[in-house]
Amino acid sequence: MREPEGSLMAGEDPLGTAQAEELEAFRVEGERALDWAVDYLANNNRYPVLSQASPGDIRKLLAPSPPEEGMGLAGLVEEIERVVMPGVTHWNAPGFMAYFATTASPPGILGELYTAVLNQNALVWQSSPAITELEPVVLDWLRQMLGLPEGLFGITYDTASTSTLCAVAAAREVAVPGVGERGIDASVGLRMYASEEAHSVVDKAAMILGIGRENIRKIAVDSEYRMVPEALEAAIRADERDGKKPFCAVATVGTTSTTSIDPVPVIGQICRDHGLWLHVDAAYGGAAAILPEMRWIFDGVDQADSVCLNPHKWLMVPVDISAFYTRRPDALKRAFTFVRPYLETRFDESVVNLSDYGPQLGRRFRGLKLWLVIRAYGVDGVRQRLRRSIDLAREFEAWVGSDRRLQLMAPRPFSTVCFRAEPHGRSEEETNAFNERLLERVNASGRAFISHTVLNGAYTIRVAIGNMWTAEAHVEALKQEIERAMDG
Amino acid sequence: MREPEGSLMAGEDPLGTAQAEELEAFRVEGERALDWAVDYLANNNRYPVLSQASPGDIRKLLAPSPPEEGMGLAGLVEEIERVVMPGVTHWNAPGFMAYFATTASPPGILGELYTAVLNQNALVWQSSPAITELEPVVLDWLRQMLGLPEGLFGITYDTASTSTLCAVAAAREVAVPGVGERGIDASVGLRMYASEEAHSVVDKAAMILGIGRENIRKIAVDSEYRMVPEALEAAIRADERDGKKPFCAVATVGTTSTTSIDPVPVIGQICRDHGLWLHVDAAYGGAAAILPEMRWIFDGVDQADSVCLNPHKWLMVPVDISAFYTRRPDALKRAFTFVRPYLETRFDESVVNLSDYGPQLGRRFRGLKLWLVIRAYGVDGVRQRLRRSIDLAREFEAWVGSDRRLQLMAPRPFSTVCFRAEPHGRSEEETNAFNERLLERVNASGRAFISHTVLNGAYTIRVAIGNMWTAEAHVEALKQEIERAMDG
Repeated sequence: MREPEGSLMAGEDPLGTAQAEELEAFRVEGERALDWAVDYLANNNRYPVLSQASPGDIRKLLAPSPPEEGMGLAGLVEEIERVVMPGVTHWNAPGFMAYFATTASPPGILGELYTAVLNQNALVWQSSPAITELEPVVLDWLRQMLGLPEGLFGITYDTASTSTLCAVAAAREVAVPGVGERGIDASVGLRMYASEEAHSVVDKAAMILGIGRENIRKIAVDSEYRMVPEALEAAIRADERDGKKPFCAVATVGTTSTTSIDPVPVIGQICRDHGLWLHVDAAYGGAAAILPEMRWIFDGVDQADSVCLNPHKWLMVPVDISAFYTRRPDALKRAFTFVRPYLETRFDESVVNLSDYGPQLGRRFRGLKLWLVIRAYGVDGVRQRLRRSIDLAREFEAWVGSDRRLQLMAPRPFSTVCFRAEPHGRSEEETNAFNERLLERVNASGRAFISHTVLNGAYTIRVAIGNMWTAEAHVEALKQEIERAMDG
Repeated sequence: MREPEGSLMAGEDPLGTAQAEELEAFRVEGERALDWAVDYLANNNRYPVLSQASPGDIRKLLAPSPPEEGMGLAGLVEEIERVVMPGVTHWNAPGFMAYFATTASPPGILGELYTAVLNQNALVWQSSPAITELEPVVLDWLRQMLGLPEGLFGITYDTASTSTLCAVAAAREVAVPGVGERGIDASVGLRMYASEEAHSVVDKAAMILGIGRENIRKIAVDSEYRMVPEALEAAIRADERDGKKPFCAVATVGTTSTTSIDPVPVIGQICRDHGLWLHVDAAYGGAAAILPEMRWIFDGVDQADSVCLNPHKWLMVPVDISAFYTRRPDALKRAFTFVRPYLETRFDESVVNLSDYGPQLGRRFRGLKLWLVIRAYGVDGVRQRLRRSIDLAREFEAWVGSDRRLQLMAPRPFSTVCFRAEPHGRSEEETNAFNERLLERVNASGRAFISHTVLNGAYTIRVAIGNMWTAEAHVEALKQEIERAMDG
């Protein structure tokens, strides 16, 4: 590190004393926060996984008005314990098996600490060469791990909501060049396609982008909740006959409800034949492609125009980070770029400014935590952790299959098991109510948190294994609670 | 904390040993990271403020492929030093006076640490009662600090880009009910309004939302870069005569270029008269309303439909967090809500699910860091820090005013000074080139980083004071470098 001539060290600074005092307090309270974090991660089984708060409980713990005098840094950890912890549902605990389970791993947490301290903002290249250059390399590492084709443009967004929005925005720009300038003309008749099982982020993208939810054709799924490609092609053909403009399809690798996998190779061919942008939403499931034995889940994705997966789901990175790849960065840029003089720099011709490729101008150092996770664990360590989730889910699935009171409700390609109890001689409605009670009892036990979906009217329990600390003992505890709830 | 019956403590866990080892490594490397952070913050003057990297320098420091074997946690801080630091532009250093200066304060950094460890995601209330209930209270604290009216609905987004998008989306929904369902019909002729000096996020919102940049009327500004309300009203009237549908205006309190303040009271009256949604973008300037002597900047904002400001700019909170307030949360919800069965809970009637009020389903615990900053510093401490920025800017402005070679280019309502050098007998073009060189020399010194804008064709230097560690000595150093650059 070079020291600029005449630089001001803290000692010469008239505010140096106050600063030195605050930094010393930061060191002390930071050490307490770190001790607390280690203790929390070592013992997070001590909390009920699902917060046992009732609506309004946390609000009551807070003063109605801000304090006039500050408390300083000393004692902030006690405030976290007092106010925050009662309202925490423990996403970072091994008993969390709801929605999709996630992990904020130690290297990921350290990544967030560095991100906060450095407070980078990649408005343009020069405002953070570190973000602007590290992020594409780390995304290329991840691309290689996933077996995706060379040459893809990679960028991070916060969530799959934004990744999907960006994919559809780029597709819209390709279908109607200049749409950002002129706005949408409904007479163009834009139509997009996704299965009935696609995530609601597809609906939100159509709402936000002015396409309208009515102009999404929801394509039927087969008995295993996968898009029926013949139905997709029929819908596209019908719309073409009606003078509509099919422009985008979203296929899902690992749907949120059952983790089904749409037949991407066939869908890709249909999209090419009809000139549609194909976006593959692999927010949860995509990570599994890092395992050689699971790479098949990305069959056909090399033909997609864009694909996203969320490292904050199953790749041990704290929320939020969604990795987005596209073969057509020019379309993405046309959909979003608009630059003002106060951001022009002499580097603009020779660098990529990431803010040209998404809705937000501001951009925190989101790639740093992913980089540290891959550095710390290596590809091998990432694979081991993914395999453990899948192995545990396979065992749990076998247990469900072996109990005649339980019924598997969908195939399990990844680490999420869908099932329900089927007590004898009950109506469908009674069976639903029984399973809803079962879920509530398990969650009330505090030992696990699981969630549900609804499949063809059937209330279905989802057990999603994905926290890297989840071990056999936690799955055993879940089984015990399910047994107990069924018996009770 | 209650311990659920039969919970599994780390010791009983078959993976306990590996977990215990990783957590011990986390403690050790975490302490090194914390030491590094304290040292960095105490001595960040030792780095050139603007990264001295050339395009490609950081990329070269990274391996082209991910490591097969992980390095573990030990030594990550050396990796940060080796790879990241050369590409860091020091946003968190006192010499940073470019764009808008920011601070990741110690309590804000601790907030990010807790956020990462707990890894909350507020999909719905029960998935994080802590986020869902703490965030509205903290935003209400901030509302009180700002003197905004009671009863406003507050929510955080990542950036002002998203806040603006949400404001315009809600306005669009009010103007064309059901637009999310049916999409935009260009024949409706939606028109929106913002001054020539409004931020590019307004343009991006119109592009993304399908309104089209052509349908933004850019309203003229006066000699102090404030929207001319008569021009706004004339534009609205002309559009109404043409059968267009004016639906939204964006006023700015603290424009990005010169920090000018649009006449919100008059603009608000015009919007009410013509039935437009008024959004006030106070991303940078809004924080100043916390000072009683600056509260006037929010005159008329009580009449706005929505307003946003970014605590990650001038309120000592690490990036990203934008605070958004609206009188009309129902419109915001209609613009974004769409729920799937797997997210329905028995609480949905009795709680607010924050994901219903924005583009993203996923939501990290963004309010925590703002809460800790207000707790640690108190309203009084926040005011002291804001005042110091303004005092330093006032002194710097006086210095510019006292040097006949320098010319102030715009009024300074906040802590940002716009000026240029005006060497004798030079053409406008030569003057621009002279100032561009001046800026580059100052930035090359490493002692400060300042940026520019262009005002009526004139290359203009911006000095934005806002990092809470910036003291007189840093402004003195900047003055020295400006003098040196002018003389050289």
